Amino acid sequence: MSILQKAILLIHCPDQTGIIASVTNFIKENKGNITYLEQHVDAEENIFFMRVEWELLDFIIPIEKVDEVFSEEIAIKFRMKWKIYLLTERPKMAVFVSKLPHCLYDILSRYCSGEWNVEIPIIISNHEEINVIANRFGIKFHFIPITQENKYSQEIKTLKLLEENKIDFVVLARYMQIINKHFTDKFPERIINIHHSFLPAFPGAKPYHSAHKRGVKIIGATSHFVTNELDEGPIIEQDVVSVSHLDSINDMIRKGRDLEKIVLARAIYKYLDRKILVYKNKSIIFN
Amino acid sequence: MSILQKAILLIHCPDQTGIIASVTNFIKENKGNITYLEQHVDAEENIFFMRVEWELLDFIIPIEKVDEVFSEEIAIKFRMKWKIYLLTERPKMAVFVSKLPHCLYDILSRYCSGEWNVEIPIIISNHEEINVIANRFGIKFHFIPITQENKYSQEIKTLKLLEENKIDFVVLARYMQIINKHFTDKFPERIINIHHSFLPAFPGAKPYHSAHKRGVKIIGATSHFVTNELDEGPIIEQDVVSVSHLDSINDMIRKGRDLEKIVLARAIYKYLDRKILVYKNKSIIFN
Amino acid sequence: MSILQKAILLIHCPDQTGIIASVTNFIKENKGNITYLEQHVDAEENIFFMRVEWELLDFIIPIEKVDEVFSEEIAIKFRMKWKIYLLTERPKMAVFVSKLPHCLYDILSRYCSGEWNVEIPIIISNHEEINVIANRFGIKFHFIPITQENKYSQEIKTLKLLEENKIDFVVLARYMQIINKHFTDKFPERIINIHHSFLPAFPGAKPYHSAHKRGVKIIGATSHFVTNELDEGPIIEQDVVSVSHLDSINDMIRKGRDLEKIVLARAIYKYLDRKILVYKNKSIIFN
Amino acid sequence: MSILQKAILLIHCPDQTGIIASVTNFIKENKGNITYLEQHVDAEENIFFMRVEWELLDFIIPIEKVDEVFSEEIAIKFRMKWKIYLLTERPKMAVFVSKLPHCLYDILSRYCSGEWNVEIPIIISNHEEINVIANRFGIKFHFIPITQENKYSQEIKTLKLLEENKIDFVVLARYMQIINKHFTDKFPERIINIHHSFLPAFPGAKPYHSAHKRGVKIIGATSHFVTNELDEGPIIEQDVVSVSHLDSINDMIRKGRDLEKIVLARAIYKYLDRKILVYKNKSIIFN
Repeated sequence: MSILQKAILLIHCPDQTGIIASVTNFIKENKGNITYLEQHVDAEENIFFMRVEWELLDFIIPIEKVDEVFSEEIAIKFRMKWKIYLLTERPKMAVFVSKLPHCLYDILSRYCSGEWNVEIPIIISNHEEINVIANRFGIKFHFIPITQENKYSQEIKTLKLLEENKIDFVVLARYMQIINKHFTDKFPERIINIHHSFLPAFPGAKPYHSAHKRGVKIIGATSHFVTNELDEGPIIEQDVVSVSHLDSINDMIRKGRDLEKIVLARAIYKYLDRKILVYKNKSIIFN
Repeated sequence: MSILQKAILLIHCPDQTGIIASVTNFIKENKGNITYLEQHVDAEENIFFMRVEWELLDFIIPIEKVDEVFSEEIAIKFRMKWKIYLLTERPKMAVFVSKLPHCLYDILSRYCSGEWNVEIPIIISNHEEINVIANRFGIKFHFIPITQENKYSQEIKTLKLLEENKIDFVVLARYMQIINKHFTDKFPERIINIHHSFLPAFPGAKPYHSAHKRGVKIIGATSHFVTNELDEGPIIEQDVVSVSHLDSINDMIRKGRDLEKIVLARAIYKYLDRKILVYKNKSIIFN
Repeated sequence: MSILQKAILLIHCPDQTGIIASVTNFIKENKGNITYLEQHVDAEENIFFMRVEWELLDFIIPIEKVDEVFSEEIAIKFRMKWKIYLLTERPKMAVFVSKLPHCLYDILSRYCSGEWNVEIPIIISNHEEINVIANRFGIKFHFIPITQENKYSQEIKTLKLLEENKIDFVVLARYMQIINKHFTDKFPERIINIHHSFLPAFPGAKPYHSAHKRGVKIIGATSHFVTNELDEGPIIEQDVVSVSHLDSINDMIRKGRDLEKIVLARAIYKYLDRKILVYKNKSIIFN
Repeated sequence: MSILQKAILLIHCPDQTGIIASVTNFIKENKGNITYLEQHVDAEENIFFMRVEWELLDFIIPIEKVDEVFSEEIAIKFRMKWKIYLLTERPKMAVFVSKLPHCLYDILSRYCSGEWNVEIPIIISNHEEINVIANRFGIKFHFIPITQENKYSQEIKTLKLLEENKIDFVVLARYMQIINKHFTDKFPERIINIHHSFLPAFPGAKPYHSAHKRGVKIIGATSHFVTNELDEGPIIEQDVVSVSHLDSINDMIRKGRDLEKIVLARAIYKYLDRKILVYKNKSIIFN
């Protein structure tokens, strides 16, 4: 992932002529050099989507003014929903995990190898033994056990932790607790989950058991944003692997683990690269 | 597919020691040469499954006696469910199709190229225009339109046609009619359907529309045996293809077509090669 | 594939600021509505690539003048290599085939089902028996046998046939003859071949035999433009399928057939949709 | 992976009638219960291959005598090449790695999560900084720098280390040194490498650079046993991932990393499960 001085603009708005010309003129006149532009129109919804990436080196609008100027000169006219990201910033990510550590290990390995432009200030788990792994990689760990009784208060405590650590987004790396609305509302399109099935097949708990029972020949994993509808949020990434009658539930779980960690990592990478735009519970994933 | 003088034995029975030794001794003592044996035990169900293939060249039991002898000497003792197929016979397959011809074309192309050890005496459709395609390949065509009123009587008529043509099994090559119980009961594990989604995601009608609405990143196709539960029969073969936000419903339909024809063809091939054994609504697919 | 009144512009040129703005302004000012734009810069080569699609409905430049106007107003300034295609035209495709008919059958099935915006005036083969298939689908057939002695003259004869039939591009649907330079030079980036391996592994003849000998676990197929270097032309599309030690060479050939026809069909589809741009022996495939 | 008291027998020998019956009788008569048997005949080579797995619970031949008894009663008669493995033993694996740590991290994560029935006594690297990772997971580390001058003597030193630690097999987890014959001869079919391309495409160094240059649409990874022919050893596992013209060499390297670690892990898993049998430089991989 490039960490040059780049800006990324994500837009959607009602389709109309002249949007691309206006935006690219705006960047050009302010001495930005466009390095990537991808655009398309959803013909059914009549909505225009665009992602533009440009170099900030000679850009004449000061970074802190970009939002204001773009809004006034371009966005309002076209009734855009938009956001400008600067790739110079390292977003802060919190990892939530329950018992199974394979996704956590994969995330931390990438983190320590410098694969991602991200900071991981904290790991949160409802299982104390995850502490060992957090220690191994030198990351602050918080044990936050959840019971039916304490769930709400523990979520409040967790939200406070996220705030203190200035967390930008949360990754549920096989975190087996349903998160309440008051929590998800604070992080709209900023909580990424990995579900261990090819959604919408087998939502909810024990998907490998259901897949085994149904006798499917392929199992999958799905990463998606968390919304208030369980396993119904916008899908970011999916992948599958073949299984056969020879595979027991344990074999499916084993094969699924590899899928889960790769699919989750791809989603995180795309999130960090600002390639995801959500519209009506669906993800546009730019190239 | 080999069409040598071969016999294929499919077995399942409660697991117990000595099954393999007994069966392989039986074949050996009768001068059969085993060319392939695959076996496994479902540890959860404690059921033994096996497929054995042997050459009939020097086999000393006459073909018409094999069933009787095997039953008495081996099968009864182990309480086997079993079937012996002779690859010398060309099974007779009927193709049912509605409006979309891509699977039909694919089947007929393979048929005329000699890819499969099968005969196709008839094509049946509720759409008259399919006649053109049947003619192209010189196959007998029956136009059997279906309405709510005539459905039962047309199914009776169809069953009669299948009987007259000595049809062994039926392939629903995008046949968009639900088949009633009195019909499916006549062809248990002998009607193969192609469903245009990755089951159990998106059963029923218009799966591409549902997939598009849900924003999945992968679509699939599933071939399965038809039972009385719609889209719930034993799965034979599945495959998937990637889609993105750029794919309209029509793009999904286009990409899905290629998947459907390949997945259906693979299922037919495995059926013809006697590699499928059904147990408790799941398919064991031997290698 | 949409066959609305659309224009498609493919461009590559040295990267410089203002290209996108200029092109999109040009289209906008002439009342074209852009429905799709994809653009990227090859940072290593410093080359700008773009594909733009727009509706011609209200476009004020007459179709026969578009090339001239675009050249003068835009293309020359940026030193562009470019081409404007009008999706209103049905390109004319010739199919060359040798003995194995699976790709031919697949192409003709799609053609007769109306999957593609193309015309197929002629099929050419060095095997007389292909005539049966051409007849089945009502396409004109030419038997052009090739020997070492007659090769050059037969190629001349073939070129004449292509000219008479106003052929735009040629598809080698498992055509097992090497084509000479004087022929390929007449159809630069307009001859599409399907090679039955994952290139650059196993170029040349008998790739399945080589793959079997090497013990690979995956086999592939590759569609590419034909150049004067055998199996070295720009790759358009590739796909793979798993194989195992159980697969004989014949099994590989069988599995490969399905791959070949799908990979070739995808390449033809992309060609017809004007999504391919060749630069330095590599294909840019737009989405 | 099951760690019950099980024995696994791998066999190959010239095909002849009665092999399966003899082997399964032998196991049955000695009170072993067969839980899995897979067998096939390579019809071209006329070689018989089999893997049998049975429970040792009531097996009446003492473990230390099994080899001797099997050899006398069965193996000699059929001129078998064979080996009996006991799943009760934890094999000892050494990991060699150079600079890139993703495969190492993946292996250690699985190891610490208890995914594999293996011990990892030592990690060896020609890069000192790998020490940090070994420490993180509490594994003994040896820094063995390699130059043209010291290569042979360092290999001798390494072999001594492997002997002292009773290493059963070696995994090259992106180890970028060619290993000499005197070393590989000591570990026949016991050194597993991961090559970062779809072999035989792009052997040797810098395969991603070559793949990028050739413009392939798919890249792959290959795990194989190391022999004296560079990148020519028996292939164990391969997988691929799609790339496009948008992917720079760095993008290919990034996508390839995920492929490499998964493909290597699958190969190690199959090795530990004794599912690999090598015959004439090709791997038979049992299910």
